[in-house]
Amino acid sequence: MLNMTAVYSRLLIFFLLISLQPVDVHKYLPEWESLDKRPLPQWYNDAKFGIFIHWGVFSVPAYGSEWFWQHWQGDKKANYVQFVEKNYKPGWTYADFARDFTTEFYNPDEWAELFESSGAKYVVLTAKHHEGYTNWPSNVSFNWNSKAVGPNKDLVGMLADSIRRKTNIHFGLYHSLYEWFHPLYLMDQANKFKTNYFVKSKTMPELYELVNTYKPEVVWSDGDWGTGPDYWESKKFIAWLYNDSPVRDSVVTNDRWGVGTMCQHGGVFTCQDRYNPGVIQKHRFENALNIDKNSFGYRREADLSQYLTIEELIKTLAMTVSCNGNLLMNIGPRKDGKISPIYEERLRQMGAWLKVNGEAIYNTQPWKRANDTVSNDIWFTAKEKTVYGILLKWPKTNNLQLGMIQPIQETQVTMLGYQKTLHWQKRGLGGGISIEMPNIPLPLLPNPYAWVLKFEKL
Amino acid sequence: MLNMTAVYSRLLIFFLLISLQPVDVHKYLPEWESLDKRPLPQWYNDAKFGIFIHWGVFSVPAYGSEWFWQHWQGDKKANYVQFVEKNYKPGWTYADFARDFTTEFYNPDEWAELFESSGAKYVVLTAKHHEGYTNWPSNVSFNWNSKAVGPNKDLVGMLADSIRRKTNIHFGLYHSLYEWFHPLYLMDQANKFKTNYFVKSKTMPELYELVNTYKPEVVWSDGDWGTGPDYWESKKFIAWLYNDSPVRDSVVTNDRWGVGTMCQHGGVFTCQDRYNPGVIQKHRFENALNIDKNSFGYRREADLSQYLTIEELIKTLAMTVSCNGNLLMNIGPRKDGKISPIYEERLRQMGAWLKVNGEAIYNTQPWKRANDTVSNDIWFTAKEKTVYGILLKWPKTNNLQLGMIQPIQETQVTMLGYQKTLHWQKRGLGGGISIEMPNIPLPLLPNPYAWVLKFEKL
Amino acid sequence: MLNMTAVYSRLLIFFLLISLQPVDVHKYLPEWESLDKRPLPQWYNDAKFGIFIHWGVFSVPAYGSEWFWQHWQGDKKANYVQFVEKNYKPGWTYADFARDFTTEFYNPDEWAELFESSGAKYVVLTAKHHEGYTNWPSNVSFNWNSKAVGPNKDLVGMLADSIRRKTNIHFGLYHSLYEWFHPLYLMDQANKFKTNYFVKSKTMPELYELVNTYKPEVVWSDGDWGTGPDYWESKKFIAWLYNDSPVRDSVVTNDRWGVGTMCQHGGVFTCQDRYNPGVIQKHRFENALNIDKNSFGYRREADLSQYLTIEELIKTLAMTVSCNGNLLMNIGPRKDGKISPIYEERLRQMGAWLKVNGEAIYNTQPWKRANDTVSNDIWFTAKEKTVYGILLKWPKTNNLQLGMIQPIQETQVTMLGYQKTLHWQKRGLGGGISIEMPNIPLPLLPNPYAWVLKFEKL
Amino acid sequence: MLNMTAVYSRLLIFFLLISLQPVDVHKYLPEWESLDKRPLPQWYNDAKFGIFIHWGVFSVPAYGSEWFWQHWQGDKKANYVQFVEKNYKPGWTYADFARDFTTEFYNPDEWAELFESSGAKYVVLTAKHHEGYTNWPSNVSFNWNSKAVGPNKDLVGMLADSIRRKTNIHFGLYHSLYEWFHPLYLMDQANKFKTNYFVKSKTMPELYELVNTYKPEVVWSDGDWGTGPDYWESKKFIAWLYNDSPVRDSVVTNDRWGVGTMCQHGGVFTCQDRYNPGVIQKHRFENALNIDKNSFGYRREADLSQYLTIEELIKTLAMTVSCNGNLLMNIGPRKDGKISPIYEERLRQMGAWLKVNGEAIYNTQPWKRANDTVSNDIWFTAKEKTVYGILLKWPKTNNLQLGMIQPIQETQVTMLGYQKTLHWQKRGLGGGISIEMPNIPLPLLPNPYAWVLKFEKL
Repeated sequence: MLNMTAVYSRLLIFFLLISLQPVDVHKYLPEWESLDKRPLPQWYNDAKFGIFIHWGVFSVPAYGSEWFWQHWQGDKKANYVQFVEKNYKPGWTYADFARDFTTEFYNPDEWAELFESSGAKYVVLTAKHHEGYTNWPSNVSFNWNSKAVGPNKDLVGMLADSIRRKTNIHFGLYHSLYEWFHPLYLMDQANKFKTNYFVKSKTMPELYELVNTYKPEVVWSDGDWGTGPDYWESKKFIAWLYNDSPVRDSVVTNDRWGVGTMCQHGGVFTCQDRYNPGVIQKHRFENALNIDKNSFGYRREADLSQYLTIEELIKTLAMTVSCNGNLLMNIGPRKDGKISPIYEERLRQMGAWLKVNGEAIYNTQPWKRANDTVSNDIWFTAKEKTVYGILLKWPKTNNLQLGMIQPIQETQVTMLGYQKTLHWQKRGLGGGISIEMPNIPLPLLPNPYAWVLKFEKL
Repeated sequence: MLNMTAVYSRLLIFFLLISLQPVDVHKYLPEWESLDKRPLPQWYNDAKFGIFIHWGVFSVPAYGSEWFWQHWQGDKKANYVQFVEKNYKPGWTYADFARDFTTEFYNPDEWAELFESSGAKYVVLTAKHHEGYTNWPSNVSFNWNSKAVGPNKDLVGMLADSIRRKTNIHFGLYHSLYEWFHPLYLMDQANKFKTNYFVKSKTMPELYELVNTYKPEVVWSDGDWGTGPDYWESKKFIAWLYNDSPVRDSVVTNDRWGVGTMCQHGGVFTCQDRYNPGVIQKHRFENALNIDKNSFGYRREADLSQYLTIEELIKTLAMTVSCNGNLLMNIGPRKDGKISPIYEERLRQMGAWLKVNGEAIYNTQPWKRANDTVSNDIWFTAKEKTVYGILLKWPKTNNLQLGMIQPIQETQVTMLGYQKTLHWQKRGLGGGISIEMPNIPLPLLPNPYAWVLKFEKL
Repeated sequence: MLNMTAVYSRLLIFFLLISLQPVDVHKYLPEWESLDKRPLPQWYNDAKFGIFIHWGVFSVPAYGSEWFWQHWQGDKKANYVQFVEKNYKPGWTYADFARDFTTEFYNPDEWAELFESSGAKYVVLTAKHHEGYTNWPSNVSFNWNSKAVGPNKDLVGMLADSIRRKTNIHFGLYHSLYEWFHPLYLMDQANKFKTNYFVKSKTMPELYELVNTYKPEVVWSDGDWGTGPDYWESKKFIAWLYNDSPVRDSVVTNDRWGVGTMCQHGGVFTCQDRYNPGVIQKHRFENALNIDKNSFGYRREADLSQYLTIEELIKTLAMTVSCNGNLLMNIGPRKDGKISPIYEERLRQMGAWLKVNGEAIYNTQPWKRANDTVSNDIWFTAKEKTVYGILLKWPKTNNLQLGMIQPIQETQVTMLGYQKTLHWQKRGLGGGISIEMPNIPLPLLPNPYAWVLKFEKL
Repeated sequence: MLNMTAVYSRLLIFFLLISLQPVDVHKYLPEWESLDKRPLPQWYNDAKFGIFIHWGVFSVPAYGSEWFWQHWQGDKKANYVQFVEKNYKPGWTYADFARDFTTEFYNPDEWAELFESSGAKYVVLTAKHHEGYTNWPSNVSFNWNSKAVGPNKDLVGMLADSIRRKTNIHFGLYHSLYEWFHPLYLMDQANKFKTNYFVKSKTMPELYELVNTYKPEVVWSDGDWGTGPDYWESKKFIAWLYNDSPVRDSVVTNDRWGVGTMCQHGGVFTCQDRYNPGVIQKHRFENALNIDKNSFGYRREADLSQYLTIEELIKTLAMTVSCNGNLLMNIGPRKDGKISPIYEERLRQMGAWLKVNGEAIYNTQPWKRANDTVSNDIWFTAKEKTVYGILLKWPKTNNLQLGMIQPIQETQVTMLGYQKTLHWQKRGLGGGISIEMPNIPLPLLPNPYAWVLKFEKL
C-alpha cells in the first residue's frame, strides 16, 4: 500500500500542479479564443460510436438514478426519501452505502470484449461523479475512493489496462468538477465563488492526477453549472491538457467547463444530455444517450419498457452521425461488477448491426443534408463520393421514394449485406429516385432493424 | 403475529393431517392403479404454456444455480467453495444468507400482469426448494421461512392473491419432498429409510398445510429420488388431493413421488428437466425449461449467451406442444423481488408471438405426426379439422415443401397474422404440398421468429 | 457436516425416543410419588455454588433482557419496540439477529479457568432458551441452531469439553420446555393443550438428544408454565433420566416441569428466580441469581449500578447456603463470546473470598438456625461439630453480640484467614456470646467484604 | 445539512485561516522563546485530574489497540492480520468498519454525570486520531467523519454541549497532526517534508475549525513525530491559539508539536505516554494513563487483569500530583456509545476516593520532596502550610515511620475522613516522625485503598 515508487510517481503530479510554469513556446493559451482553435483528433471524428459507463456508489442503492444522493437528501424527493426509510435503518447515510459496492464479478477483460463486440471505438467511464467518490485511489479523496472502501480495487486502472491490452478502443474518463455535498464546494458557493478553495485542493489536483496516471483520450467534464470557468480554472487545465499533458496529441475534451461554455467552447459539444438536433451541426457534437431512459446509473427497479429498443438506438445512431455527431451510448453496470444481460443484449445487437452496416458509420462525414426530403426515415452519411442512406423503416409498399438522391445513369444502388443491386428509376416530379425494395427471403435479410442503401456513381 | 384466528385456522390443517379418516365413498384409492386413472383436468390440457418460478434463499448468493448449497457444502465443487471463500467471511453458513433475502421490490401484481402478457395460462412457484426454506410462514419450518427471516412476507400468499385477483392464470406450487441437509431426512436415510420421521414431522404436515392454505391447482412435486413412494407417503397424499382436498376437481400433479414413479405414475409426466422427446407421447408430459441454460434460480454471473433466445424458446414450445406436452418455462427472480429485464423481455416476446399465433397452441392437440417428413423445421398441432404448422425457419428460397400435408383442391393455406391466402401446389414425388412463401414487406410480417401456417379443408 | 458416524449416533437417540420401552426393573416410575423419592446426588449438596450462563440470540440485540423477543413482539413493550425501530431497518425480524451471533472470542478453556477461579463447583449453560435457538446442532431445530446460523460452532459441546478437560466442575444445561413463538406450541395452546404435537416433535426429541449427547449433570428445566406436566410428558422423561440415561447416577434436575410442580415436585426446588427465603428450608433449593439485576442475558445498556456488588453477592451466598440452598449465580456472555470484565471481576472476587472462606460454604449443612437472633447480619452453616458464622457487617464498635452461640469454657472462636484466636466472653441476659473483633492491620485482614467466624468445641 | 448559516459560519473559519494577518500588538510571537513564556492557566494547575477518551473507528474492530489500522496494514503484525482474515471477508478495508460505528447508546449527558462523579476536572476527547476520521463534521474530511458515515452525529459537539450544560468540567480535545495513511502526508513524507501540502489542506484547516467551533480548553496535540514543527506550522498555530483564538485566556496545549518539542516546548509536558517520573519536575507535566494497560481504545478481548486496579490508579495519581503533574486517565468507550461498567467502576471508585481525599489533590502543589525517605509508599503534596501524605500501603505493624516530616510539639496529624487525631512521636535516629495508625473499625475506615495523612503546624 505504501509502495514508495507509486508515492513518488504521484508526487510528481503534485509538483506539476504546483510548480507548473508556462514553458516557452506553447501552442495554446489559456483563453477560449486559442483553445477553441484546436481541431478534434481524427480518431474521434472517425469513431462515431462510444460507450459511456456510469458506475459508482450510486450503483449500490441502484434506485431512481445516479442522482440518488441529491434527489434523496438535497431535493428530498418523496420516492427517494421513502425508499431509504423503508429499506434502511434510521440515520442511514449515503456514505454507509459504500461498503456494499462489492464488485465481486468485475472482470474488465470481459467488459473490454463486450465493448469491442458492440462496435464501439471508445469508452468513457465515470472516474468520479457528483457524489465525489473516486473510482481510483485518488490522493485527494481519502477513504472515499474505490481502493479504500467497498471494492478495494482501482476500478479505473483495471479497465484502462484491459481496454488497452485487449482492444483497439480508446479509453476515456468522465469527471465531475463539482460535488453536490463537498463542504469546500458549498463554502465557495456560499461565498459566491469568490474563493475557490474546493478547486484548488480537490478538483484540479485530482484532474491532473487522473490524466497523468491513466492517460485518458477523452476527458469528459461535467458538473460545471454552478459558476463560470474562471472559478474552475478550466482554461488553464485545458491549455495544459493540449500543450503538455501526456495525451496532448490525442485527447478529446468537451464543453462542460463552467457556465457559458456549453455548446460554446472547449472540444466536442455535448450541449445537453441526449442532444440530438436532427439537422447537421457545424461543430462536432456528441449525443450522450442513456439506454435506460430514466437513468445513467444502474436501476434495480427498471422495467424492460424503460430500456430503449435496438431500433430506437440505431435510429439515434443514424440521426446523430448524419448530423455530425458521435453517439456515446450509456450503460450502468451493477454494484457487483456485472453488466446486466439486457445491456449486454443491446450492445451485442448494436455490434451485429454495425458489423454489416458500419461502413455507413465509421470514418464517414455528414452529407449535404441529414435526412431525405421525401422519405424522412432515411438518414445520410458520406464517404468520398459514396452516399449512404440508413433506412429506419422498410416501406410497406416495398417502394422507396427519395428526394435528395439525383441519380445518373451509372448510379448504382446496393444494400449493405445483400449481394444484388437494387432496381431504381428516376422520379418524375421534383426529381429524386424511386427504388424497388427487393424480396429478400428472411434468412438472407441483413438484419431486421434498419438497412443501409449505398449510392455510388451519383 | 399471534392472531388467534390464524392460529386456529392453521390448527384445522393439522387436525386434518392427523385425524384424516377415509370417508365412505372415495373415488381414488391410495394405489397407483387407482390414482393413475384420474384424467388430467381439461384446463391443463388446454393451457399448454406455464411459467415456472424458482425463488428462495439461493437467490441471495445467486451464483451457480439454485443447487448452490448442495454444490457448495455437499459436493464441495471448487467454484462454489471459492466463491464463498472469496466473498464472505470465514465460517459463513448457508442460513446466514437468509437475512439478505430482502424482496424490497416484490410486487406480485406486477408479476401477475407480466405473466399474463407472456401468454402463460398457469404459474408454478417454488413454495419450498431442496434447501427447506419455505416461502410461506409454515408451521413446521420455524425461523426458516419467509415470514421469519429475510422478507418478513408471505411470498406464496401474496402471489396467489395477485394472480387470482388480476388474471385468469391458474396458480400452482412446487414443493420438494426432501431437503438436502435436514437432520431428520439424513437420519432416515442413514437408517435406510426404515424410519420416516422426516416425512411424518415435516414433509407431509407442510404439504397438507400448503394445499389447504393456498389451494394450488398444480402441486409440482420434486426431490423424491432418494427412495420409493412408500417412504414419502405419496399415494396417501395424492389420494387425499384427488378425493378430499379443496382443489380435488382442478388440481394437477406430476410424477415425482418417489423412485420408480417418474415417467410412470402420478399426473403429468415430467420425466426429466427439459424433457423434449421430439415424438408424440401417449401420456401428457411437461417440459420444464429454464431460460437460463445453467440455472433455474437467478444467477448474477450469467451472460446473455446463457439465456435462451426467443427463437429457441418458441422452437421448444412448438416441439413440446406438437408432441403432447406443456411447456413450463422457468424464470428466476432476483432476491430484491424484481424479475430482471432480460427475463421480462423473453416473457413479453413470447406473449407477442402467442398473441398472433396462440391459436396454434392453446386448446390444440397433437396431430398425427409431430413434425414434417420433408421439412423438419415445421411442427404440427391440430384443432378439430384444422391443422397448424409452426414453421421455425423461413425457407431461403421462399418455397416450402411439406410431405405430411396432402392437399385437396379446396385446401386453403393461410399464415396467422397475414391477410392473404398462400399459393400452393401439389408436390409430385411422394405427395405433399409445395407452398410459395409470400413477399411480405417487413412491416407487415407477423413476427420475425416463427410463422404459423394454417391448413383448412384438408 | 454429513459425517455418517455422527448421523448414526444421533439416530440412536431417536430410536431411543421412539422405541423406548420400560425395561424390566426400574427404580423410578413416571409418577411424582416415585420420582420425588430420589435423593439429590451428594455432589450437588456439597457444591453450594454454581454459575448460570445465559447465552443465545438474545445476546445479539443485548438490550433489555433475554426476554427481548417476547417483550418486543409478544408484549409490544414500548422501549423494545422503539429500540428496534430506531436501530434496525423496517421489517426487521428476530431471526435476522442470528447471523450476528459471531462468538469470535469464544474460548471455552478461558471460561473454564474463570469458572474454576470463581470457586464454582458446577455450571449451567442455556442449551436452549424460550427463543428456541439451540446452542448445539440439534436435529429438531433446522437452521435455528448455533452450527447453522451465526457461530457455526457447537457452543454446548465446546464448553462441555473444556469444563471436563480443564476442571473438576460439574457441567449442566438449562433447557426451556416451551418456545414463545413456535407455531406448534401455539397450536397446541390454541387447542387447550389437548394436542401435544410440539412436545412430541420438538421438546422431547431435543431433550433426549441433549442428555444423550452431552451428558449434563444438571438438567435445568424452565418454560413449563403454560400447562401441566402431562402435556410436557415430564414424568416419563424424568423417569428415563433417573433410570436409564447416561447420567442417571449423578444428574440433578429441578422443579419446573409443568404447572403445579414448582416448589412441589422434581429435584431441587427453584420456586422462583432469585429465591432467597431467609429461613431454613426443608427441601433443598437453588437460588438463581442474576448479577445484572435486570437481566440474565448480557445487556449492553447496563450501568454499573445495575450489577450486584460483591458484598451483595456474598450476602446472598451466605443467606442461601445457611437456609439449605445452592446459589446459581448468573452471568451473560457477550455475543462475541467474551465474558465482560465486570462479570469477570465479580467471579474472581467471589473466588478470592471462597479461597479463604470456602470452608464455611462447601460440604456444609444448615445449622439449627439460619442467622443470629441478636446480630442479624451473621449467617450460620455447620460441618459436623463446627459452626461457622458468616459476618456480613463488621460491628462499628468492634464488639459482636450473638444470641445463638452458647459457649462453654473450651469454646474456641477464630476467624478464617486470620491466625490468632478471638477473645470472647459469655453474654449475660438471655445468654449468648460477646466477641471482641481484633485490631487487624489492613494488609492482614482476610478480605474487606465479609468474615467467617469459626466456632469450635461448643 | 445545507443550512446556510452553518455554512457561512464555517466559512469564516476558512477566512481566518487564509486571511489571518498579524494584528498590531500580539503578546506571543510564533517562536518557542516567546510561546514557552506563557504560563499554564491556573485552572489547569488546580485540576490535577482529567479523563482522556479514545473513541473512533478503531472502536469498531475494538481489537488490539487504537493503533489497529497501523498494526494491521502498516506493520502487518500477525495477530492483527489473522484477526481480520478470520473475522471479515477477503478484501476488507479499514474504512469498511466505519459503517458499524453505531453509537446507539451514546448519551453525553450520562457521560458528563459520570465524569463529574469521578472527580475529574477536565476531559479530553479524541476529535481525530491517527486514522484521520473526525468525530465532528469536518469541512476537510469529506465522508470520513462521524456525521457522514456511521454515527450520523456530531460526537464532539454533543459532548461539549453536555459537559458545559451539566458540569463544571473543562472540555478539551485531542488532535493528531499526522494521519498514518493519508496520501498527502505520505507524499510530503516521500518528499522529505519539503512540501507540506497535507498540513496546508488538512491539518491546519481542521485545527482552526475545531478550535473556533468547539472552543476546547485543552488542545492535546499528537502524531507529530514524523518531522519538525516547521513542517507542521505549529508555532504559528499556537501563537494564534494564545493571541487570538476564542480560548486564548484559558486554553492549555501540550508539547507534541513536531520532533524536538516533546518535553521541551509548548504547554504542559507529556514527554511520553504514561509519563510518571517519580521525582518532582520543574515543568508541569501530564501523565496520560490508559486504564486498559494495552490500549487507549476499547478492546473487546481485554481481560480483567489488563485493567489497572483502583489501587494502581490511586498510586499513579498520588505519584503524579506529588511530582508536579496532572493525571489524564484514559477510558475507551464502546462503538455503541456506552462506557463499559468496568471503566465506570474505576471512575466511580476514583470519585469516591477523591470525595474524601480530594483535599490532598486539587489545588495543591508539590512539597519539597515527592515521597518519603523512610517509607517510600507515602507521597506528599502541599497547600500553603499544610502537608498531605498519601499513604498507599497501610503498615502491617500499624506503625508508620517517616523521615521527611520533622514535627514540632504543636504538630497535628489527622487522617482525611477520620475524626480523631493520630498519635505520634518524634523518631530518634535521623529525625522524622513515628505515627501510630489507629484501630478504626472497618465500617468507619475512610476507604480501603489509600489514606491521606494531613500534617498541620509543622
